[in-house]
Amino acid sequence: MGIFQSKGKVYKPAFEIDLGAESDEVYTHANVKAPRVAGFLVKLFVWILETWILGPIVVYILKKDNLVHKLVSFAEIPESPLFTATHDFEGLQEQEVTCIDPDLSPPERVKEAMGCLPASLESTLDSGFKRWTIKDFSRAYNSGKITPLKVANRFLAAVEESSAPHLQMAFFINCNTDDVLRQAMESSIRYEKGTPISMLDGILVAIKDEMDCLPYPTTGGTKWLHKVRPCTDDAVCVKKLRSCGAIIVGKTNMHELGAGTSGINPHYGPTRNPYNINKVSGGSSSGSAAVVCAGLCPVALGVDGGGSVRLPAALCGVVGFKPTNGRLSSSGVLPLNWTVGMPGILAANIEDALIVPEINLPHLQSSSSLANIKFARYGKWFNDSSADIRSCCDGALLVLSKHYGWKTVEVTIPEVEEMRLAHYVTIGSECTASLATHLEKMKYGEIGWDARVALQVYGSFGSRDYINAQRIRNRQMHFYKEIFRRADVIVTPTTGVTAYSLQQDAFRTGELDYINGAALVRYSISGNFLGFPAVTVLAGYDAGGLPIGLQFIGRPWSEATLLHIAYAMQVHNRYLHREQID
Amino acid sequence: MGIFQSKGKVYKPAFEIDLGAESDEVYTHANVKAPRVAGFLVKLFVWILETWILGPIVVYILKKDNLVHKLVSFAEIPESPLFTATHDFEGLQEQEVTCIDPDLSPPERVKEAMGCLPASLESTLDSGFKRWTIKDFSRAYNSGKITPLKVANRFLAAVEESSAPHLQMAFFINCNTDDVLRQAMESSIRYEKGTPISMLDGILVAIKDEMDCLPYPTTGGTKWLHKVRPCTDDAVCVKKLRSCGAIIVGKTNMHELGAGTSGINPHYGPTRNPYNINKVSGGSSSGSAAVVCAGLCPVALGVDGGGSVRLPAALCGVVGFKPTNGRLSSSGVLPLNWTVGMPGILAANIEDALIVPEINLPHLQSSSSLANIKFARYGKWFNDSSADIRSCCDGALLVLSKHYGWKTVEVTIPEVEEMRLAHYVTIGSECTASLATHLEKMKYGEIGWDARVALQVYGSFGSRDYINAQRIRNRQMHFYKEIFRRADVIVTPTTGVTAYSLQQDAFRTGELDYINGAALVRYSISGNFLGFPAVTVLAGYDAGGLPIGLQFIGRPWSEATLLHIAYAMQVHNRYLHREQID
Repeated sequence: MGIFQSKGKVYKPAFEIDLGAESDEVYTHANVKAPRVAGFLVKLFVWILETWILGPIVVYILKKDNLVHKLVSFAEIPESPLFTATHDFEGLQEQEVTCIDPDLSPPERVKEAMGCLPASLESTLDSGFKRWTIKDFSRAYNSGKITPLKVANRFLAAVEESSAPHLQMAFFINCNTDDVLRQAMESSIRYEKGTPISMLDGILVAIKDEMDCLPYPTTGGTKWLHKVRPCTDDAVCVKKLRSCGAIIVGKTNMHELGAGTSGINPHYGPTRNPYNINKVSGGSSSGSAAVVCAGLCPVALGVDGGGSVRLPAALCGVVGFKPTNGRLSSSGVLPLNWTVGMPGILAANIEDALIVPEINLPHLQSSSSLANIKFARYGKWFNDSSADIRSCCDGALLVLSKHYGWKTVEVTIPEVEEMRLAHYVTIGSECTASLATHLEKMKYGEIGWDARVALQVYGSFGSRDYINAQRIRNRQMHFYKEIFRRADVIVTPTTGVTAYSLQQDAFRTGELDYINGAALVRYSISGNFLGFPAVTVLAGYDAGGLPIGLQFIGRPWSEATLLHIAYAMQVHNRYLHREQID
Repeated sequence: MGIFQSKGKVYKPAFEIDLGAESDEVYTHANVKAPRVAGFLVKLFVWILETWILGPIVVYILKKDNLVHKLVSFAEIPESPLFTATHDFEGLQEQEVTCIDPDLSPPERVKEAMGCLPASLESTLDSGFKRWTIKDFSRAYNSGKITPLKVANRFLAAVEESSAPHLQMAFFINCNTDDVLRQAMESSIRYEKGTPISMLDGILVAIKDEMDCLPYPTTGGTKWLHKVRPCTDDAVCVKKLRSCGAIIVGKTNMHELGAGTSGINPHYGPTRNPYNINKVSGGSSSGSAAVVCAGLCPVALGVDGGGSVRLPAALCGVVGFKPTNGRLSSSGVLPLNWTVGMPGILAANIEDALIVPEINLPHLQSSSSLANIKFARYGKWFNDSSADIRSCCDGALLVLSKHYGWKTVEVTIPEVEEMRLAHYVTIGSECTASLATHLEKMKYGEIGWDARVALQVYGSFGSRDYINAQRIRNRQMHFYKEIFRRADVIVTPTTGVTAYSLQQDAFRTGELDYINGAALVRYSISGNFLGFPAVTVLAGYDAGGLPIGLQFIGRPWSEATLLHIAYAMQVHNRYLHREQID
């Protein structure tokens, strides 16, 4: 018993902990003890990890050095486990919200959403990229100025161009020209007859390759998963988009198995950041973020298991929106985990994120009417980011406060690093349980090197680790519920770093860069582990011109309020931009 | 990866499985490959298991041979995990039920319960034991024929007698004479003044030593747990009984840590079966069952994590009642597990089980009025018990059908053995996570030998085992919900064997008897793993005169119906007995 003994943290009962600004809780900076490794060293590392006896010992040391043992495995935690992040629908009294009648069909919902949009959008001013909104497309289609078929052809040409040797953006894993053209043709005919299904008719939507979508296989970013798990139907989210007339344009690239956040996929290429093709796009929904950023389509679906929608959205300067756990159906999403992942939306603008059905809708026409919003901000956490991010996000908060009168209260949200590790144990354990029977049947050579490292660590967790992680989930749920008594929305940067450099040595092996990895997920975890809705919106740029995201985390089912706030931020950006132009 | 590969069962999707009588599902008999071991061999086995490298290999072989690998660890299971056994309150349309107003105080609830009891009880005819019911005591106290103090004195004398060398019943771990007399004195004064608090005033109640209850330590059947986890308050269930005036008479013996079902405790002695002191009492709530059986008190509390209330109740011929998960508060119960254990009630009669507060109450006055009850019976499972049990339980069903017109439908409940193993993985993993930080601080010498074996196996489960077990929970929940569409109540024997022999070689080391263990828990698991309410009631005796229990498992929150049916069974027993006497 004593041989593998490690000293565990003794947690105080959660209810005894002071969550005020003056709390004596210590902020633990991510204690990542692992240098960046790529190329041959990754291979060597995999060989060691997959060795009998030596492998487990190395994994043991890794977990010990990186505080998994101290903070999770061997910790003394007073709370009982909480195994899921589900929230009863609370019937929130949100201000200025249209509640969607659950009996409405998807096209009827889209119509309701229309009613919430401001009369005129200044859609082309929000960044250097010229992007049409869904409303722009819809107007143009209805007026006959352009047809979905024409747009689809332009899209296909852009995909081809982006894949050319000088760009190699690696946006898509699969894009079937015939299938895209067929849908576009059908949509064009509907417009011609004057019978479009909804405002989404003819709108191009890309789908992360973690979600079932015919006629494509669902690879999960691998070379093998689709062979053992054939795709036989559309995911529910995809079905709903189709029923509104949307054109599904293909399956976007992703970090292999969602097991990383850089978006460097050794099989399908690293997705490049449209702002700077020598930078990472972030992941795991790398392709979905990048295609929206590049303006190839206004909306894409992603899946967010540990920030996987919000991180690449922030790095690519687009909107990343992860609703409350349970709001969007996970049916037809690869079961890489069960209790932390959920579908999310990537869009160029808040207006477009809200057109995707089934969310209660904020009335954006009256954007200044949301009175009395109170933000919670945990200074030590907020500031655990690069200087550019800190000052940009603080500036954005200041502007929101000035323009809308929204107040910020300083709070303490304890055990940020503890939750990151507990979430890692959870997603790793669930990924193992989900994939193990497949993995046992296959040759490991088909799996990318960095994913093999992840799988070895994922498979090393005991049931005690897993259950302790759920006790930490219970603690955190207590903390967040308390914070949401003091404020409506928690505000953080979306990531601790902006898009970092894509290095050639990582192209074939992936890279192990847990320091950047920890900085990327630093602010995302509560959205997944606790199931709260969260949205990231562009707040500015760093010195290198790379986008910075600001994140708003809301109470369960308060998506409308969140989107409203994010919209206010976006409007502010436009004015700012216009002022710069003027 | 491949080194530890074991072939796992490939499960069909749950919804595809035929649950009808003609289903081709195979009934897997418990495949226990482990001979009974006691005495020195247990010690030797512990030494091996606690050895580094060799220990884990032996545990591995054990799990492989006993199908844990095939049916749980390496199985291919289509379902997602279900981590808890909670059921929303469904507002069942139960017949002839008094719903308890949640705002009533415990004494007011007891008063409501009174109103449901039949006018006259024939309480002394149900077995060879002469036992007073709560109503008998209450009448006698109110009439002044006897005082609580007198009863308490008689009780204390009986405890002393039962502990004498010729009996050594090992009923209690702790029984504080002063504390019992003080409570009895206070109650006697209340009766003298004519101000008893409720019908429970002056009623003796024993508490399993797994539940906090002042002024006693909570040992959990160990010699150490109370030292690291002091008892500082009454458990909620104990508090409610006290507030009704009940006299708490001490902490009953139990299987160490609840980690076994024989009731053989190496520290406090094996609890003997009052029917035959050379037989086991069953466990883990051994003392609670035995004191009620022996007539020392009419009611006792237990905790049921894998049949721990129902098994000893069946072996001791008393009522064992485990309500729906969540009905009774677990606050103040040792956290030996989180998702399978819950408090339960042991009583000499159904009438007494129902006086314990917070259950909806069946109207027992009108016992024949429960029309149209439909039983589900799975023949292969039902008959996987000793010949005496089979014929006794079948006979009981026949009589119920004859007397009340209740029908039985034959069904198939798949994967009984799979669920037993999944439950074992679950309770073992949770026990490890709960106790590990305590265990790491102590000397193993203080723990009983058989508990040390259990702890070694418990600690060996990976997160994949645990999560797969929860996927099996999800399958089983599906099956049971389907069965409850076809019938109101599932009927089974309570155990596969009656009380077996207590062997001298097990007294100091405990015994490893997984064959009898599996037979004991064979019918209990759904009550814990799926959280359904269940009750066991005496149905007859085997050839050796040992009690046989019949179990009714009900829909969530249908306790009133269950108790009503159990009461009908009990009435039948009385008539039967009277016929024998006449």
